This record gives sequence, C-alpha cells and structure tokens, in this order.
Amino acid sequence: MTNQLASARGVFAIAATPFRDDGRLDTAGIDRLTDFYVACGVDGLTILGIMGEAPKLEPEESLAVIRQALGRTRLPVIVGVSASGFAAMHRLARESMDLGAAGVMIAPPSHLRSDDQILAYYAQAVEAIGMDVPFVIQDYPLALSVIMSPRVIRTIVQNHASCAMVKHEDWPGLDKITQLKAFMAEGSMRPVSILCGNGALFLDFEMERGASGAMTGYAFPELLVDVVRLQRDGRRDAAHDLFDAHLPLIRYEQQPGIGLAVRKYVLKKRGIIASDAQRKPGSSLTGTSRAEVDYLLARLARHDKRAAI
Amino acid sequence: MTNQLASARGVFAIAATPFRDDGRLDTAGIDRLTDFYVACGVDGLTILGIMGEAPKLEPEESLAVIRQALGRTRLPVIVGVSASGFAAMHRLARESMDLGAAGVMIAPPSHLRSDDQILAYYAQAVEAIGMDVPFVIQDYPLALSVIMSPRVIRTIVQNHASCAMVKHEDWPGLDKITQLKAFMAEGSMRPVSILCGNGALFLDFEMERGASGAMTGYAFPELLVDVVRLQRDGRRDAAHDLFDAHLPLIRYEQQPGIGLAVRKYVLKKRGIIASDAQRKPGSSLTGTSRAEVDYLLARLARHDKRAAI
Amino acid sequence: MTNQLASARGVFAIAATPFRDDGRLDTAGIDRLTDFYVACGVDGLTILGIMGEAPKLEPEESLAVIRQALGRTRLPVIVGVSASGFAAMHRLARESMDLGAAGVMIAPPSHLRSDDQILAYYAQAVEAIGMDVPFVIQDYPLALSVIMSPRVIRTIVQNHASCAMVKHEDWPGLDKITQLKAFMAEGSMRPVSILCGNGALFLDFEMERGASGAMTGYAFPELLVDVVRLQRDGRRDAAHDLFDAHLPLIRYEQQPGIGLAVRKYVLKKRGIIASDAQRKPGSSLTGTSRAEVDYLLARLARHDKRAAI
Amino acid sequence: MTNQLASARGVFAIAATPFRDDGRLDTAGIDRLTDFYVACGVDGLTILGIMGEAPKLEPEESLAVIRQALGRTRLPVIVGVSASGFAAMHRLARESMDLGAAGVMIAPPSHLRSDDQILAYYAQAVEAIGMDVPFVIQDYPLALSVIMSPRVIRTIVQNHASCAMVKHEDWPGLDKITQLKAFMAEGSMRPVSILCGNGALFLDFEMERGASGAMTGYAFPELLVDVVRLQRDGRRDAAHDLFDAHLPLIRYEQQPGIGLAVRKYVLKKRGIIASDAQRKPGSSLTGTSRAEVDYLLARLARHDKRAAI
Repeated sequence: MTNQLASARGVFAIAATPFRDDGRLDTAGIDRLTDFYVACGVDGLTILGIMGEAPKLEPEESLAVIRQALGRTRLPVIVGVSASGFAAMHRLARESMDLGAAGVMIAPPSHLRSDDQILAYYAQAVEAIGMDVPFVIQDYPLALSVIMSPRVIRTIVQNHASCAMVKHEDWPGLDKITQLKAFMAEGSMRPVSILCGNGALFLDFEMERGASGAMTGYAFPELLVDVVRLQRDGRRDAAHDLFDAHLPLIRYEQQPGIGLAVRKYVLKKRGIIASDAQRKPGSSLTGTSRAEVDYLLARLARHDKRAAI
Repeated sequence: MTNQLASARGVFAIAATPFRDDGRLDTAGIDRLTDFYVACGVDGLTILGIMGEAPKLEPEESLAVIRQALGRTRLPVIVGVSASGFAAMHRLARESMDLGAAGVMIAPPSHLRSDDQILAYYAQAVEAIGMDVPFVIQDYPLALSVIMSPRVIRTIVQNHASCAMVKHEDWPGLDKITQLKAFMAEGSMRPVSILCGNGALFLDFEMERGASGAMTGYAFPELLVDVVRLQRDGRRDAAHDLFDAHLPLIRYEQQPGIGLAVRKYVLKKRGIIASDAQRKPGSSLTGTSRAEVDYLLARLARHDKRAAI
Repeated sequence: MTNQLASARGVFAIAATPFRDDGRLDTAGIDRLTDFYVACGVDGLTILGIMGEAPKLEPEESLAVIRQALGRTRLPVIVGVSASGFAAMHRLARESMDLGAAGVMIAPPSHLRSDDQILAYYAQAVEAIGMDVPFVIQDYPLALSVIMSPRVIRTIVQNHASCAMVKHEDWPGLDKITQLKAFMAEGSMRPVSILCGNGALFLDFEMERGASGAMTGYAFPELLVDVVRLQRDGRRDAAHDLFDAHLPLIRYEQQPGIGLAVRKYVLKKRGIIASDAQRKPGSSLTGTSRAEVDYLLARLARHDKRAAI
Repeated sequence: MTNQLASARGVFAIAATPFRDDGRLDTAGIDRLTDFYVACGVDGLTILGIMGEAPKLEPEESLAVIRQALGRTRLPVIVGVSASGFAAMHRLARESMDLGAAGVMIAPPSHLRSDDQILAYYAQAVEAIGMDVPFVIQDYPLALSVIMSPRVIRTIVQNHASCAMVKHEDWPGLDKITQLKAFMAEGSMRPVSILCGNGALFLDFEMERGASGAMTGYAFPELLVDVVRLQRDGRRDAAHDLFDAHLPLIRYEQQPGIGLAVRKYVLKKRGIIASDAQRKPGSSLTGTSRAEVDYLLARLARHDKRAAI
C-alpha cells in the first residue's frame, strides 16, 4: 500500500465536508461531491483535512464521512488524522485503514520548532498509527507555523518506511521541490510522491520543478487535472495559458480565513453541494465578496466554459 | 449556579488524570485522587484542564473522568471543555452539566490576536455551550499565546452573564489582578471570582492583590489551602514563610513541558496515584531530575513535615 | 502637511535601495531609480521600508538615502522610521522632516498582541516623533504578525491628528477596506488615505472597495499607475484585463523571502538598477527561478509591451 | 582570546545601562556601576544585552557605553552585538574588539525556526564579524522564540572555532546542560563555557549539572558569585540555603516585561545607580509593586545582611 501512494501521480482533491444549513453533516451530499470529483478525473481524494473542517467534527461524524466516501469510490482515499493526542490519532487511523483508506495525512502541531522536535513528533505519530499505515507529511508553514527544511523531510522519509508522500505547501516552495527531487536523484532520499497544495497558487511552476501532481481543493478540480496533464505532456505554454485564466480566482480563493467560504460558494453555485454552510468557528462571504467571485467567474468563463455557471 | 461560582473563594485543585503504566485510564484511581484533594481541604476541583491531559483523551474517556469525579465528591467541579470545534465543546459542556458539574472552563485557541477576535470567540463559545452554563475564562498567555487585556476580560464578563470566573495565570500578572479588582470596585465590571494558576509561582502576592484564591495543580494542595487561608486571616508573614519554604519546589514544578512529570512524580511518591505515566506526547523525568526533586522534598520536609515522604 | 498626505490618492512606489555588487550603497543609483519612478507617473515615493532593506543600513547610510531621494524629486516622500527604540525613531523622523519628507511610516513591532498594546505603542511613537509629524500606519500582519482590527486603526486615527494614512496590507483585507470606508462615511473616523501594499496581489478589487491607491514595490510601477487610473475612471473591465495580464508575475514577486530578489532582478533587467545585490541577510534567485521570471516576462510582453525587455 | 572565553568560569554580570531621569545616557554612572560589579567579585561583564536596553541606544551611545566600561575595568567584557542587519553587527563587533572587548554575544532573530535557518544565520553572522572574533551564542527561547536543540548548538560550536561560550537560558534547561556536557565528555563537541542566565531562577541546579557559571543581571551579583563558589567547593547545602533565601526576589525579578524595572529599582535603592529610568518602550513599577519588592528585601535581609538597605 505504501508503494501505491509513494508512486502516486496526478491530482488528489481535498474534499470539502458538506453540511446542511443548520450545521448537520450532509452525509448524502458526500456521495454527490465524491461523484463530482471522480467525474473531474482526479486520481484520488483526501478527506478530513484542514479544509474539510475536520477539527469541528465529532468522532462518529468523522467516521461517517470516511465510510461514506470510501463506500462511493474505488479511488485511493487519504484521511487526515491530525489530532491533539495520539490516542485519537491511533483510533482514527486504524478505523480509516479498516474501512479501506489508502493512507493517512499528519500535520505537525504548531508548537513544534526545532528539527529534533519535528522528528520526535513524527516518530511518535508513526508509533501511534502503526508502522504499516502509509502516511503523508503535510508541510504547510503558512497555516501550521512549522518550518520543515528539506533535510528534515528527508530524515522523516528515511526513518519511516511507511512515509509515502509529501503534501507540499511551503511558500515560497519551488526551490524546495527542486531540492527534494535532487535528494531522490542522488539516492539520499527514497522516492515519495510530492503533491502540491497551497490552493494551487504555484501549480504551473511546481509541475515544472518535478512535483508529482496536486493535492488541493480549488473549486475547479478540472483545472488541476488539466494543468497536471498538460505539463506532463510537455505542453508548457498551454498549461500556463489555462492556469493563468484561472489565476485571478485561484488567488481569490487562496486567502486565509475566507478561502473555504469562497470554495463552498463556488461549489454550491456549480450545483455540487446543497449548502455552503460551515461549522463554527467558520467564515462567510459578504454580498460584495460574492459579487466579486461572480465577476471573476464571468471573466473566467470567457476562457473556460466550465466556469459559465 | 453562576452566582455560586462567581463568588467562589479558596482553592480549586487542578486534577491530574491518572493513567496506568500502559496508558489506559485509571478510572478507579480517580476516586483516590479525588479523596486526596478533598482531604487537603480544597473548595472545588477542576478536571480535564491542560494539566489533566484532556486533549489526549477519547470522548468516552473524558466522560468517564467527569462521571467518576462527580460521583465521588459534592464539591463544585469545573470541567475544561476547550476544543478545536464548537460541536465538541457543546457536547462536552452539556454532558458535564447534566452530570452535575458546577461550570466549564474555556481557553482561547492560540491563533487569536486582536481584542475583536477574542471577544468574537467567547461569544461563539457561549452560544455553543448555552447561555445557562457558567464558564471560566482561562487567561494563560505563557501556554496559550493569547494576550487578554483587563479591558477585554471585563468586556467578556459584561457581555455574558454566565461568565463566573477568571483563571488568572498571566505572567507577569499582579497588576492585572489589581486592575480587575479596581474595575469591580468602581462598578464597571460585575464581580467574578479570580482564581490564580501559573503553578502558584506568585500566589503569595496574588492573594494580597485581591485574588479570590488559587486554581492550580501543585503537588501539595495543602500548601495552597494554607497560604490562601493565612492571607485571608491577615497573617501575611506566616503566609510568606510557608510559601517561601515551598517555592524551590513550586519553581521546579512550574517548568513548561516537564512540570506535569514533576507533579505526577511527587503525587506518586506521596502514594496518591499508582503510576506517573503520561499519555503521549508527554514528558518524563531523567534520573537526575528525579534526584533533584527528591532533594527538594527533603529540604522542604525540614519546614513542612507533609513533605517527609 | 498632514492634510496633504491624508488626502493622497494614486500610487506611492516603495523604493528599493540599490547596492553595488560588493554591498556598498549605490548612492548615485538612487537618482536613476527615483527618475524611473517619477517617469512611471507615481504620485509619491516611500523609502526605507521593509523592501528597502532599511534595517540593514547604518544610520548615516539611511540619511544618505533620504537626502539623495529628496534632492531628486519634488514628489512627496514618506520615510520608514520603524526602529527597535524610540530614540532612533525620533532622530530618523526629525532628520527626515528637516530634509523635506512628507511624512514617516511606522510598523508595529511583532511582539504586540492586544489592542491596548498596539494603542500604547503608537501613542509612544507619536510622542517620540513629535505630534507635528504626519505618519502612516503599516498594517501588514503577514510580515509583522500584528493583527490590527478596523476599530484599533480607527482609534489610532482618532487619537492622533498626525495620523495621515494607512498602508493596508492585511490579508485577506478587502472587507477591512470596506469597514474603514464605512467608518469614514458614518463620520466615526477622520478621513485618511488608504494605500494598498501586499505586492498588489489584490489591487484590482482593493480599488473597487474604496482604497485611495497603491503603495507597493512591484517592478512595473506603471501597472499600478494604470490600474489605479482605470479604476478611477470607472473602466473596470479594462483595469482587470491589464491587472490579470500582470498577475502571474505579481504572484511570483509576492513570495515572502524571495520577493525582493525577484523585484531587483526585474529592475536590473529593465536597466533601472545596476546590481540586484541585497545586503545580508538577503535572498537570491537560483538559475531556475531567474528562468521562470524570464518566462513570465516573455508571456507578459504579449499583453504589455513594457515587459518586452 | 577564544580560548580565554571558552574556558571562562564564574560570573559575568549582565550590566544594566544607567540613564538619567530625562532619558540621557548616564555615562559617568557606568563607572560606578562597573566598580560595583567588580567589587562583587564577578569574573567578567556583559554589556549591551537585552537587559542593557541595547536596541534603544543610538550607535554613538553604544560606543560610549563600550568605551566607558572597557576603560574602567580589566575584567573581560562581552558586548552584545545583535542587530537586524549584518552591517551594523559588523561595525559594532569591530569597534568593540578594537576597544578591547573579550568577545561579542549574538542572539538569533526571532523569526528563525528550522535548524538550517539557525545554522545559516550564525554562519552569516560569523562572516560578518570576522572569524577571529570570539562570540557567545545566546540561547533564550522565552524571550527570543528560537528553539536551539543541543545538536544545533553543537554544530555551531563545531562549525565555528570562534564560538567560545553559550549563554544558556532555555527553560526548562537543566537536561540541556547535561546533554551539552555529555557531548563535550564524549568528544563530539569542543569544550566551551556555559554560563547561565534566565534571571538565575535555576542557578542552584544548573551548577550541579555542570554549568561553568552564571551570566545574568540579578540585582545582587554577590549571590551569584557565592552560589557559584559554594557549588564549586562542593558545599551543596550551603549553596541551596543561600539561593533559597534569595529565590523569592529572584522569582519576582525574573518576570518578563517588568524584570528590568525591578532590577533597576533595587540597584537604585542600593545606591549603585542614580536613576531607575528606562528608555521607551520601557516598564515601570507601580507603588504596590515597589512595596512588594521592599517587603521581599526586608525578608531577605533576615538571611543575607547585604539586603538590608
């Protein structure tokens, strides 16, 4: 299983978690959302990530989300299991794997600073989830405040055979991809998959630096699929042309705090989810912001008909 | 119920959570620990706080802890309900109150910065737990990285009738107590209880500044009870004499990261808990550190026979 | 003088500080750079900001930069005077004003958290520079880690008649502009100028929200001038068309850490500065990064001939 | 010179910087203060540290402080040269050494996180000050927010022959001393001096862990000298007895933010400095706080006549 994820290429969509307007989990809506991602041509799903509002779910709700998604698709599914204690992480990871997940994703807690602290944390996490569970390192300093140098990532990969993937969303991060690929090329680091997040803000160049693909939740997963494919096929200009058409919206969606509100608003507008409600503490869009997104969609539709909603 | 907590004076012990050596919850041990606190003369208990390793418990374990403690004592019990989502906070608060808790304690999440963010968070939290549930503001910048000015605390108290208490552990914090008491004296802030934490490092002077008492987990709760009583009785020198005898150990126990290990080590040595195990991620004492604590206990025993273990 | 800045509209270019390859200040190069900004049609200059590498200059070098820039243009010049002590801030502000500066810019030190701390800091700063010196609040949480709510900004403006401008670079920040403009509209906040920074990443919409203009250092100040003018003239689509053509490069330049290296690389390539050297600690571009910027410039040149270098 | 500092033992007093009530530097007062430290039996001085309000001084004032102190004593003097740019650090280090300093102290800037960032910073700093200038690593996470693991400190020591000393003030930090001493014992780390700061809050045990002495600014440097000497002479109980008598005041003085105000208040009360004024932004003591310090001094005087002021 580790090998499968370690060689993953393409796009893993970070799935939103659909709620009803009253805040209840929209379990049935997960089916529709999952179908949508599959129809977009993604290669896998990641559920219960930061953007999936995982910390706001009760344990049984998390299980329901996992069960629903895994029951709906045969694509590999990665489950975010970051938790403040290893007991909860252990349980969620075990349940996920028992239900058929392809692996789990672990974000470092934001108080970690030194390399030793980070390495110790991942060692404890691997002990907690079990050495047989493939896991993804989430490297997201902007949201998590933890700085993992390329050497630290390499050490985690080398220390733990079950480390299969890096969710790369350092910022700036292009040279980091180059460095990690150089480690792999020289043989000092076992090959793992590098999927890029950070709202896809640099996906155009990330693919050129050697990334394996994307793992983010942009409301047009089709764009991620297209850019990854075009870059793979060596069609650089075409990849950038399409990416640039989406960049104004990508940029708007990547704003901390309100990004998820933009994403859910667009997904709802596209008819994929029934409500754009977030659990509290959440964010929402003002009327002006919604009008700005509408304007961006209208402009985008001139280049990409899929945005004509 | 609010009024009861709002006028609370004395000592609320922050209860450790006893585990077995293998990490399982020592439910029966909670009875022994609760009896110990009661025998020390405390006026209440606080369970599932930071020092109670609350984030490392599964939801059903948290419930077990609450049920066990509330079933063992008629003293008022405050339950820490800080959580990353309001759904979990709501449930834990409701269950706690249904089981007979006197109130709940809410720590601000560490990403909060501006006054508006802090006020909005407590407003959402109150909405989540219900306006009828008495709650305690935990003001602990050293651990939580959130700075609450006296005016912000006052606004929370004034905005929410269910706010009953401040767990004061700002550092430095003596002038903050003075300021809060001045607000109460001038009538601009409703009277609430101010119980002091921060390992009791400044309890001697905090009482002189007008604090209502202590809420911390020092391994000799008797000392807290004595100092609070002596200061209340106006026996300033006696209070300081006793406090100073304990200060070398208090100082040693208040170290971030390893403080809980010191506390559990002493509690075990005193025969109160069967194991000093912590759930991961936890801390432990080296042999040298244990020897240092032993030395401090031996020195303390010359002044306070209760330390002769 | 306050009134002049408080009603400023248009573009203030954040000036880079040119060094020679050996790290010495390129004083003569300041003339050429100043001439360039003026030729771009900017309405003012800001020197010795974060992007001007101000903390890396010796005091006499800072003076030399101020003297050179003020001797070269009659446009209003704002001088960054942020310093770790008020003695240095006082001196730099006084010298700047004596030499003819239009005002000074003050960034809050990154340890400030609560509203009270921020307000106290600006009160002390105003006392240090003198109540007659027009000043700009720099609101840049991404770089400075200080969160200033709209109400805090309003209080600073109301408390200090010499506050003339907000350099707005909160992120996300569109609704903040709307809020500040609403305060001004309802009369609860004195009108001040709002110039937007953050690398111009949201300049398209910031103008629509009511911003007075831009204050940032994008390597094509002409773009800032054009977008601000087009939005003022009500030519929304044209503004976005031009902005979107630049967005891929704007996005690349806005990366923390290496943004200044991109900016200096482009300015050198455009023939405006002789060297793209930064003082240490600084950043530099790898060959791959330079090639990426070249590629972005080539793509941009299809839409904007000024990028055909 | 490196060797001299690398083998330093005993007490280096962190010198306060005396100002007049109006904020001007009290140059003559430096002589009196220096004489006092020498009379206390210290083995060296450290000037222009955090507690010396270095960032609030103009460059020529810093030079005046250095000149005055070095002109008054033949003891080794370490000069704090931490600065936001390497140009300023270079100049201050060079001037200090030219005037006869024994070495310089460098604190890491607070944005550093990963080991690589820390190592790169010290490499750049050594390049800036020159490989011939002995330097001290300041390891003070509580104030600086930078976490340096023992391995990182070892790497800095091994990478730079001019690294002579660690100012140890991690908290908790006892096991860190043990680890560093173990590195030295096993030969993996060149022997350097370890002098302990953090207000002396753990000096009693730090000496037992193998520290070389103290480097802090407690207002009774005699206590530091005595404790270090007693511990060296193997008189453990006597060391603790004396230390414990001072601990209530040490604890009071170590409070972040107001610690320097306490220190200057006591030094003034002892007749060592003429004014307890701090440059802005500074802290001051309320009347209640001064009375608390007076009370602590009176209590201390029962055990240590030097506190009878």
